[in-house]
Amino acid sequence: MAQHTVKFDIAEKPIHVPTGMLVSEAAAEAGVEINQPCGGQGRCGRCAVRISEGEIRRRSTLRLTVEDVANGYALACQSVVEGNAVIEVPPQEKIERRLTTDRTAAEVIVPEGYDPARSQTIRRLYLTLTPPSMDDQTDDWSRLQTAARKQAGVTDLKTSLTMLRRMGEVAREGDWKVTAVLNAKTWDCPDCPADLLEIYPGHIPEDTPLWGIAVDIGTTTVSLWLTDLLTGQVRAQVAEYNQQIARGEDVISRIIFASKNGGDEKMRGLVLDTINELIERACDRSKAEPTEIIKATIAGNSTMMHLLLGIPAASIRLTPFVTVVNHIPSMSAGDVGLGIHPMAIVDCLPGVASYVGADISAGVLATGMDTANKVTLFMDVGTNGETVLGTSDWLVTCACSAGPAFEGAGVLHGMRATKGAIEEVWINSKTYEPSFRVIGNVKPGGLCGSGLISLLAEMFLTGVVDKGGSINTKLASPRVREGDHGSEYVIGWGHETQNGKDIVITNVDIDNLLRAKAAIYAGFTVLANSVGLSLETVDQVLIGGSFGKYINVEKAVQIGLLPDMPWERFQFLGNTSVRGAYMALIDHNLRRRITEIAARMTYIELSANNTFYDAFMSALFLPHTDMKRFPSVAAAMEK
Amino acid sequence: MAQHTVKFDIAEKPIHVPTGMLVSEAAAEAGVEINQPCGGQGRCGRCAVRISEGEIRRRSTLRLTVEDVANGYALACQSVVEGNAVIEVPPQEKIERRLTTDRTAAEVIVPEGYDPARSQTIRRLYLTLTPPSMDDQTDDWSRLQTAARKQAGVTDLKTSLTMLRRMGEVAREGDWKVTAVLNAKTWDCPDCPADLLEIYPGHIPEDTPLWGIAVDIGTTTVSLWLTDLLTGQVRAQVAEYNQQIARGEDVISRIIFASKNGGDEKMRGLVLDTINELIERACDRSKAEPTEIIKATIAGNSTMMHLLLGIPAASIRLTPFVTVVNHIPSMSAGDVGLGIHPMAIVDCLPGVASYVGADISAGVLATGMDTANKVTLFMDVGTNGETVLGTSDWLVTCACSAGPAFEGAGVLHGMRATKGAIEEVWINSKTYEPSFRVIGNVKPGGLCGSGLISLLAEMFLTGVVDKGGSINTKLASPRVREGDHGSEYVIGWGHETQNGKDIVITNVDIDNLLRAKAAIYAGFTVLANSVGLSLETVDQVLIGGSFGKYINVEKAVQIGLLPDMPWERFQFLGNTSVRGAYMALIDHNLRRRITEIAARMTYIELSANNTFYDAFMSALFLPHTDMKRFPSVAAAMEK
Repeated sequence: MAQHTVKFDIAEKPIHVPTGMLVSEAAAEAGVEINQPCGGQGRCGRCAVRISEGEIRRRSTLRLTVEDVANGYALACQSVVEGNAVIEVPPQEKIERRLTTDRTAAEVIVPEGYDPARSQTIRRLYLTLTPPSMDDQTDDWSRLQTAARKQAGVTDLKTSLTMLRRMGEVAREGDWKVTAVLNAKTWDCPDCPADLLEIYPGHIPEDTPLWGIAVDIGTTTVSLWLTDLLTGQVRAQVAEYNQQIARGEDVISRIIFASKNGGDEKMRGLVLDTINELIERACDRSKAEPTEIIKATIAGNSTMMHLLLGIPAASIRLTPFVTVVNHIPSMSAGDVGLGIHPMAIVDCLPGVASYVGADISAGVLATGMDTANKVTLFMDVGTNGETVLGTSDWLVTCACSAGPAFEGAGVLHGMRATKGAIEEVWINSKTYEPSFRVIGNVKPGGLCGSGLISLLAEMFLTGVVDKGGSINTKLASPRVREGDHGSEYVIGWGHETQNGKDIVITNVDIDNLLRAKAAIYAGFTVLANSVGLSLETVDQVLIGGSFGKYINVEKAVQIGLLPDMPWERFQFLGNTSVRGAYMALIDHNLRRRITEIAARMTYIELSANNTFYDAFMSALFLPHTDMKRFPSVAAAMEK
Repeated sequence: MAQHTVKFDIAEKPIHVPTGMLVSEAAAEAGVEINQPCGGQGRCGRCAVRISEGEIRRRSTLRLTVEDVANGYALACQSVVEGNAVIEVPPQEKIERRLTTDRTAAEVIVPEGYDPARSQTIRRLYLTLTPPSMDDQTDDWSRLQTAARKQAGVTDLKTSLTMLRRMGEVAREGDWKVTAVLNAKTWDCPDCPADLLEIYPGHIPEDTPLWGIAVDIGTTTVSLWLTDLLTGQVRAQVAEYNQQIARGEDVISRIIFASKNGGDEKMRGLVLDTINELIERACDRSKAEPTEIIKATIAGNSTMMHLLLGIPAASIRLTPFVTVVNHIPSMSAGDVGLGIHPMAIVDCLPGVASYVGADISAGVLATGMDTANKVTLFMDVGTNGETVLGTSDWLVTCACSAGPAFEGAGVLHGMRATKGAIEEVWINSKTYEPSFRVIGNVKPGGLCGSGLISLLAEMFLTGVVDKGGSINTKLASPRVREGDHGSEYVIGWGHETQNGKDIVITNVDIDNLLRAKAAIYAGFTVLANSVGLSLETVDQVLIGGSFGKYINVEKAVQIGLLPDMPWERFQFLGNTSVRGAYMALIDHNLRRRITEIAARMTYIELSANNTFYDAFMSALFLPHTDMKRFPSVAAAMEK
């Protein structure tokens, strides 16, 4: 077998290894210690190394982003040597930071071969107008149109009152040289109309950025990427809680609030405030002016979109659950109320249904599943549990109404995944004593979604709860007791916690979690059934959403939230919605693909679906009524 | 020769007259007295009769409008009998009223064969939407689009944020029956996009008017016609002084005011207030609500258009005299600030140049000269003296910068044609004593344009002024004297006038009037020269503008303001601008014709034209240096 030379940066000398050896094995051979908390199963991401040079094949990239891979990162336990290589072993802190914080803007990969001249709807033109004279008394606007036609081939230029009010003075100020910013649906056809969005006196420097923003309005968090449309480069990434949270945790309570007198305007104001503050922040970082932002692409669930635009959302909540609009026409920022250039194009991406919104259409684009040969299951684990199953030939989708249990709501000591949240729990199978990890390494204040999943899996595997989710009250442990809400298990005693009170999980909490995970798993089942597939044949499971980032796949499988399949089929993608919005922002062909995706997705309404009800009832157990669906869990239980 | 039976309504019995007899002669034969103040020359319009039945040929319709003729009116002195006829002789008061006031709305003729379904851009659709159900969860907007496509063949319906905010609730309120108001550039092509402007719950009664307005923004007067777009009928006509007058009499002073800090917004506010008050007044008369008005077509000179839209007008005033925009794109009333439906289409008609605006493009349409075989001279006598010469094959135009002398400004005792203005003057050729007619039959306060023309003509014919316009100070009359402003002629003594002071005309006034009339006549000359015609070959002279309505053609020819040609070639058309706007409002083919007219008109800039200077100098005499051009005046002088 062929031998290759592998050099680890922190090793004294290179080693020689055969084709197919794992990088982690090679490291051991070179005397380099690499952390493998998950035991080399590719689940934890903590063995990430960077391939400086050479040939390494990644069998799985769970926990790595597109950018990570592009930047050379690989999981040592999941990558095999196929040629000579130079490998960098980053300090553990760097990996931790990579796993727990957002990427920085500079790391977002502009799609290869990206050509704004062909893909961007916005163009900046440098025009030289013929000055008027007594022999040429044409109006200013005709002069500008002529220059655009002759100098840039724009034959159908359109203007607005705002631009008419400015162009005469701008042209004179620039001594008949102007820089014009135009938008067109496409620049492929010579006769396609283009809109004049802005005009500056003189020819401004060519390297002046042309700003655009991609926005994802999440029910909980709003994310914004400030982008230079001329290069496609993301220059700032910012995120903040959606201020609407103050008026309701989930979409239902927000719709109710908005439906009350004046509530819609309040809701609209709150999300606009959130976005506009993010715009200020991103601009501060990038030395941009908000009024220089000339295009915004917006994704979000259907309720968020309606509330942003002040469109009544009441019908989303009431049977038969319809939106007012899924395909929103292009608008101006002034009309929408965004604090950017008032003439800026605001492109709200299309959704599919009341509970499968533009965030999912954008997410599907970000995953690339709509053009993949593989069967892909894409899920956005959250309140609504939107899920898409499909290939390049077909796409089916549903929303599971999981409820907010995994976001910490509806659980006595649940909380969001912020500082003080227990994010992972281990239970000693003999003593039933727990240990846990807290975000920020402080005293715990409660349990976030990943902590709850981890806790429930450990409780199940150690017998603290049974298959039906009932706490075993006969257990010989002070941790199990009767509380105000029935039986409960104590994770943290008062002296260990932030507020001095015990942190517990109750039977009621567990019921809520079971219903949430059953709804999500039942959704998968219905989608697979609808196309005559079994879940096991899915080639890849892509998990979007910020919550997904923290999920421990093994634990999620153990409670029956995720289907039981090999690790390498899973991948966490982070915020696919804002990434899809970014892709649509910089490339009108990708934008069009989102419209096609939204049109292609067949929506299955679960609340009117008998299969769903049966699948839901079967999934209300740990991990499932049908243990044959979860062979790895059965094996773990036997151990 | 054939004999015909003619019956006058106020005569005892019918008479028999030969073919070709004038109606006025027939009347005399029947013993019916018909007023002929102008001596049967067809100039004064006071011999108007109504042909109830029968065949009468009108040789000239000077002083009659399109509506008058359509309603059967004819000038007795200019019409000949060609068959049996029944003729009505209206009381003189009725004729007087007809001559001195605006027509009533009911008298405006809807173009023959007018078919709103083919000609109107606005349509009202009665749509029945499929209600949503658990089996059909399409969004509201798609539902509406589908109904429009299936029930009305509208394949490309577009909406706005305003409509998206309303449609869901409206559809439910109407139990999925709605009435939608749409606008399309044309309904000729099935794929043409249409905009949703308004939506009402349920099916509103079919005879509910669909309101539109045609507006002419004159420098002095704003006119507005409220129209039912479903029938084309004008339902109210209102007019009022342009409130901008308070900030300047003419366009130049208004531009200067608007160019000062904040002046543009003030100017915009003043004209919007004027229009919006007219809208209220017209709606009050017609039981309409301003917000029911869904379309507005606006004409006006280029300065008025710029000031209405808040577009800087400074360049109009400064060499090389260019506008910011001649072809203004379609806008919404909300953007413009009109107090009608905020989504209403506002169509500002196209102009040609700084001093040949949309009022002239609209006027040309109203005259029909752009499709006529005759050579037509169309003029809008006023400050700018816009003039168009042309046929169906060619159109040339110019603006004469006559100044406001004929509108009463720049003349010591000049005033507008309102109550108290001397509108006609006669001077006794022996005593040089004047007599005059005052509007409203009150004590005179000054002289309006027609009064000035009449006065100047009489002064010239009686020798009170010479060919050069100098007052003959040697005249044996107390009326001629030296005043503060040089030589002057007293028209009214203090005891006869409103303010107790003498009303005079001075040599300075006469100079101003001469320059004004010379500019206008020189304009005619340049236009005729530019196409190699002589003025005498012009087939018809059409005079628009409210000022034109009061001109005495004979006097105007005598001072050399109008070319010397037979009476029957002249016609007064009133406000051609608002009529053209009305035609464009109800018929998109006529609207397109205005664009063609504006594009076809060749604009001749007189300030850079040597021919103009020569023609102007030659026209600075009474009536002209070249008396061969004014044979009728030469003949009158000999008398």
